Amino acid sequence: MRSFPLSKVYGLLEPGPVVMLTTARGDKRNVMTMSWHTMLEFEPPLIGCVISNRDYTFSILKATKECVIAIPTVELSKEVVQVGNSSGRDTDKFAAFSLSWKPASLVKAPLLPHCYANLECKVVDTTLVNKYNFFVLEVKKAWINPKIKHPKTLHHLGSGSFMVAGDTIRLPSKMK
Amino acid sequence: MRSFPLSKVYGLLEPGPVVMLTTARGDKRNVMTMSWHTMLEFEPPLIGCVISNRDYTFSILKATKECVIAIPTVELSKEVVQVGNSSGRDTDKFAAFSLSWKPASLVKAPLLPHCYANLECKVVDTTLVNKYNFFVLEVKKAWINPKIKHPKTLHHLGSGSFMVAGDTIRLPSKMK
Repeated sequence: MRSFPLSKVYGLLEPGPVVMLTTARGDKRNVMTMSWHTMLEFEPPLIGCVISNRDYTFSILKATKECVIAIPTVELSKEVVQVGNSSGRDTDKFAAFSLSWKPASLVKAPLLPHCYANLECKVVDTTLVNKYNFFVLEVKKAWINPKIKHPKTLHHLGSGSFMVAGDTIRLPSKMK
Repeated sequence: MRSFPLSKVYGLLEPGPVVMLTTARGDKRNVMTMSWHTMLEFEPPLIGCVISNRDYTFSILKATKECVIAIPTVELSKEVVQVGNSSGRDTDKFAAFSLSWKPASLVKAPLLPHCYANLECKVVDTTLVNKYNFFVLEVKKAWINPKIKHPKTLHHLGSGSFMVAGDTIRLPSKMK
C-alpha cells in the first residue's frame, strides 16, 4: 500500500462503490459493509455516511469516533457479502472469514490490505446522527494499491445484486 | 415512463450514478449534474446531496424547495458533460443543448424523458446546508423507463473520467 494524496480521495468515493468500514474498541475489531455514503468536501476530504443504529458498528463509532473506510474490488465479493450478512455482536468477522488486517497509522481501526484503497477517518460532526444515523468523517490519511489501475469496484443494486465497474471513458470536462 | 415504487428507489441511487438535477423558478428551468449524493432512508426514500453554493441551482433550490433527480445513461454522456460545464446564470441549457423536458406531476421542476429514471423531490431538511451545502430531499414520485433492463449509468472518477456500469452479478445476500 502506498500513501495517496488527500486531494484525490474524492475520485475514489464519488463513483459510489460498496465499501467496508472497520472499527476497533479495546482489542476487538469489527468490520461492516456500507453503500450509503457521499463526499461532502474535496479537501480536507469530508465524507457523509449512514450507519444504522441497529448495526453493531454504530455504538463503537459513536464512542471511539474513528474508523477506516476500505474499498474492495470484485475479487473480494464473497467476503463483502459474508461481512454484510453477519454481525460483530456474535461473530469475530476477521477470524470467521479469514480477513487480513494491519494496523493503521493514525486511528485504532485496522486497514484491510487486500482492498484497493484504505481511508483512515475521524468522526468530525454528529449533528444528524440522531435523525438519520448520518456521520460526517474527515479522511486523515489515505492508502492505495498502486498496482491496480482499473479497480473493479462493486456497486450495490439491492438484494445482493451488484454492478461491477465497467469501462472508463474520458470526456472534455471542466469538472473537478 | 412508467410509475416506479418508492420502496425500490434506493436501488437506483445506491450504486452511485452521476445524476442530473432540474429546478424551476417562474417560467425558467435549469439543470445541473451532480455526483455527491447518498440514500438516507429506504421509505419514504430520503436522499442527501451536496449542491455547491457557487451553483446557480443552490439559490433556486433553497427558495423553491423542489427538484427532479434524473439518472442518465451513457447515451447521454455528451449532454451530461455539457450541462456540467455550463451555468444557468448565463445559459438556457435546455435550449443550448437541445434537452427535452416534460412537466412533472408533483413539482414544478421538469422531468428529463430521455433519462433512465426520474425522481420528483421536495427539500425536507436544510440543517446542514450552511455548513456543507447538504440538502435532504424526500422522493415523492418516481418514474422509470421500463425498456431499459441494464442501464449503463455513468460514475464520475474525477476530471472528466467516467466509469460506465459493467456486468451485474448476484450473490447470496440478506442485505436489502
